Amino acid sequence: MEQQTTMKSRLVNGVNVNELFGTIDAVKGAPVIAKFRFRAENQWMDGGHNRTMIKNFYGTQQDHKRQESFMLDADEPPILLGKDKGPNPVEYALTALAGCITTSIVYHAAAKGITIHSMETRLEGDIDLQGFLGLREDVPRGYKEIRMFVKIDADVPPEELEEIINLGPTYSPVYDTITRAVPVSVQLEK
Amino acid sequence: MEQQTTMKSRLVNGVNVNELFGTIDAVKGAPVIAKFRFRAENQWMDGGHNRTMIKNFYGTQQDHKRQESFMLDADEPPILLGKDKGPNPVEYALTALAGCITTSIVYHAAAKGITIHSMETRLEGDIDLQGFLGLREDVPRGYKEIRMFVKIDADVPPEELEEIINLGPTYSPVYDTITRAVPVSVQLEK
Repeated sequence: MEQQTTMKSRLVNGVNVNELFGTIDAVKGAPVIAKFRFRAENQWMDGGHNRTMIKNFYGTQQDHKRQESFMLDADEPPILLGKDKGPNPVEYALTALAGCITTSIVYHAAAKGITIHSMETRLEGDIDLQGFLGLREDVPRGYKEIRMFVKIDADVPPEELEEIINLGPTYSPVYDTITRAVPVSVQLEK
Repeated sequence: MEQQTTMKSRLVNGVNVNELFGTIDAVKGAPVIAKFRFRAENQWMDGGHNRTMIKNFYGTQQDHKRQESFMLDADEPPILLGKDKGPNPVEYALTALAGCITTSIVYHAAAKGITIHSMETRLEGDIDLQGFLGLREDVPRGYKEIRMFVKIDADVPPEELEEIINLGPTYSPVYDTITRAVPVSVQLEK
């Protein structure tokens, strides 16, 4: 990891911790700037293939427009009647969780001044498709359980690694979104 | 949408409904084939940047290996101390939800023989970053609420469109995963 120490920027794990503490102080002074609204637009293509566009979001009391959109194709593999033009939606859910736990660990370790040298994770989640197919009411449609395994090399004694890992579930927005039961409304737009 | 009618394949909404009903019959006969395990691997790159690889999954009592992996970069925008090398994890969560609701509507409409001509959706979700920053215990870390708006053109009377839309929340695995509170374990791999 690149490390720089100047008056303006102190990088830990690639995170500018001066800016991070600056953000925390700013939010303490004006909590309204912490209110974010994230957005996505999706277009159905054909069969299991659809495309999500990620571009703008709202935060710090203003709209943020990226110069270019991110385009993400989702599809199903042939065994699920698709053409494999992208990961399927439940694989995108694991992607969201993996990224969020990782970033939460990295940022919160940075705030504590703990250097992480490397981190790799693998995730697995179980779904019984009898739920999706509507064959059994007592089988959940979604993941029954998700397990994440973290390999990490950080500048702490081995016995403190668990503590670093726990920064993930403690602070991750996607972990919270999946484990807490978030209200989702789906409505017709006329 | 391309429509074909032969003995072997009848496409509705790009979904081979003969195969779909074949799958349903097969699962009724041997529920164990409906047990799937999806997987993801993630590598931390630097700061808010990390990369997820999606390749293999298990289902129908065997491992399925795609020829190529899907690589998905996640990062944070500059306002969240990243370099915008990809959508951020909470935007991936919206992507998962958008794709899953869409596919659930498309597949279940196909099973009912209902043709969908087009479908576009937009999603927004609210997050108060005081949670992630650990500034307030009473503020959730994740989405407070997610709203999805669906524009759809389908071969049903206008008053039945709501019913078609509702196939999404009724059957979508990601909708269920987000709204139900799924157990997630995060553990150190030694």
